[in-house]
Amino acid sequence: MILALDAMGGDHGPSENCPGAVEACRTYSDLEIALVGDSKAIEEQISSVDKGIRSRLHVVHSDEVISMDDLPAKAIRSMRRSSLRLAMEMVRSKEAAGCVSAGNTGAIVAGGVLVVGRISGIDRPGLGVVLPTLNRPTFVIDVGATIRCKPLNLSQFAVMGSLYMKHMVEVDEPDVRLLSNGSEEIKGDEVISAAREQLQKAPHINFGGYVEGNGVPFGVADVVVSDGFSGNVMLKSFEGIGELALKIFKDEVDHSLLAKAGLLFMLPMLKRLQNRFDYQRYGGTPLLGVNGAVIKAHGRSKAPAIASALSVARDFAIKDGVEKIKRGIGELLLEKKEAL
Amino acid sequence: MILALDAMGGDHGPSENCPGAVEACRTYSDLEIALVGDSKAIEEQISSVDKGIRSRLHVVHSDEVISMDDLPAKAIRSMRRSSLRLAMEMVRSKEAAGCVSAGNTGAIVAGGVLVVGRISGIDRPGLGVVLPTLNRPTFVIDVGATIRCKPLNLSQFAVMGSLYMKHMVEVDEPDVRLLSNGSEEIKGDEVISAAREQLQKAPHINFGGYVEGNGVPFGVADVVVSDGFSGNVMLKSFEGIGELALKIFKDEVDHSLLAKAGLLFMLPMLKRLQNRFDYQRYGGTPLLGVNGAVIKAHGRSKAPAIASALSVARDFAIKDGVEKIKRGIGELLLEKKEAL
Repeated sequence: MILALDAMGGDHGPSENCPGAVEACRTYSDLEIALVGDSKAIEEQISSVDKGIRSRLHVVHSDEVISMDDLPAKAIRSMRRSSLRLAMEMVRSKEAAGCVSAGNTGAIVAGGVLVVGRISGIDRPGLGVVLPTLNRPTFVIDVGATIRCKPLNLSQFAVMGSLYMKHMVEVDEPDVRLLSNGSEEIKGDEVISAAREQLQKAPHINFGGYVEGNGVPFGVADVVVSDGFSGNVMLKSFEGIGELALKIFKDEVDHSLLAKAGLLFMLPMLKRLQNRFDYQRYGGTPLLGVNGAVIKAHGRSKAPAIASALSVARDFAIKDGVEKIKRGIGELLLEKKEAL
Repeated sequence: MILALDAMGGDHGPSENCPGAVEACRTYSDLEIALVGDSKAIEEQISSVDKGIRSRLHVVHSDEVISMDDLPAKAIRSMRRSSLRLAMEMVRSKEAAGCVSAGNTGAIVAGGVLVVGRISGIDRPGLGVVLPTLNRPTFVIDVGATIRCKPLNLSQFAVMGSLYMKHMVEVDEPDVRLLSNGSEEIKGDEVISAAREQLQKAPHINFGGYVEGNGVPFGVADVVVSDGFSGNVMLKSFEGIGELALKIFKDEVDHSLLAKAGLLFMLPMLKRLQNRFDYQRYGGTPLLGVNGAVIKAHGRSKAPAIASALSVARDFAIKDGVEKIKRGIGELLLEKKEAL
């Protein structure tokens, strides 16, 4: 299987993307990766890689890079030789079974719609992310693709999230909830209220009502549905508090001999915690609703997160995630159009 | 100074509200508190309090309670004998210098507008909260009063938040930022974009652009402006991750002898951390934009959080926060109406 990687995307560019690709190839012997970007910079990164792996890395030259500041749709339309666009064209033409980029989120979404194309029956795509929580993985959709939503967009996210968890994570009848500012039905605004009413009537959806930001980390739902703005705020808030806690913990340990002594005893426990919640291990967010496996990696991704995003793309392609979502959406539209 | 406390509000009702009032009276010798609610339940709670404090507690009987499920505006209008409404009427009539409730957030907001009244020049009120961050207190407004906002509402929150930090927390020229889904100007939606443009032109506002959910805990701004929905999601996300981290930490320590040994060494450090970030110590969110000191306490507040909310109300009343916001808004409207 060939996956396309936007080697220029993200804060670190080829220096982390290429080692990430190497790592993924080491893990999956069936994997070949097209590294799309500045060929000189890429070759530098992979020149010392052993032959076995090197033969599975293909360099696809591109001389343009979409930056974080570029206007998404405009950039995708006008920068036709950009690494991101070329990677996506490989998905559209089926040269690649999927693509990964840590670049400009908006451009990935725009490219998903304009280059890869939408799935029929889906109005707007949603970026989903599988979060580790207290007792189960939770899929949050949308975390930044469709900033403000209509009720229908939220309902479609619920359907796609539910199908993703069912087929990719093998959760039976995923418990779907809507992110809101309270658990009571009177909470939310008109959009959220209307989405709730749609989902209460929707077939094939195991809808559990609202969930709040403090419920998500405790794993109260398999799928959390949100517009891209609030989902993004929630995700980054989780990140921010996690990073703050880590920083303060480290600072305190640095300044206290007692705490340093205690740390020695706690290392195995802290290691376990880190393994469980390290976002580098969960570094791939699928763009659902488009006609191919398009996976966004965190802008700050280092090699392990890129490798993880590639493994998400590989898994999505192997399990034929796009077909499963298409079929699910198609059945739903056919059978119960009125319910959405 | 007399403050009115909705003794029935919150998850715990009189059993935590009354001890909270007692604690606040012990801390502030100038404080008297009107405990509004079921007089029998209140008397039970304060029967054994020493005379000195008891003489500063006044029981105001009310036989109705607005529950968490009641429709806010309807409840405030129809339940005229409810503890929340009576507490707010004491503020309107100036019998009380301010009021505190841990009850139904929507009803507190509705009561603020309908009973206490809005400040002229403010269209919608905002709930603010002072958060502890890495290096400074950060005021987040709105965390749940005005669920969806127009640009003008966000600009008014920015002005009120800036005035609050200046006069209540004594921050010179507070750095104001807008919560968004990215730091670049192309992020946000039309509402946030328009608010950004208003704030860039606004006089008296030291506007620093956008902030993301992961920047807030690191203290990048003095004031973070958001609509009530996303602000609420962010706040609860912070809470949720904090609580999850604590739970997992405790569980791990419970299951590991090594970690337990390490914990002994770390206790002083953990105590410091807890003191720094304990939300019970930050348990009062002012409702800005209304004509009186109306402070919401967290629904889960125990006595220390209630005492803390009462101290926020006392401080707000002593420093004449309402007048300062009124004057600031008035000057702004007079001088530079076009800029907003």
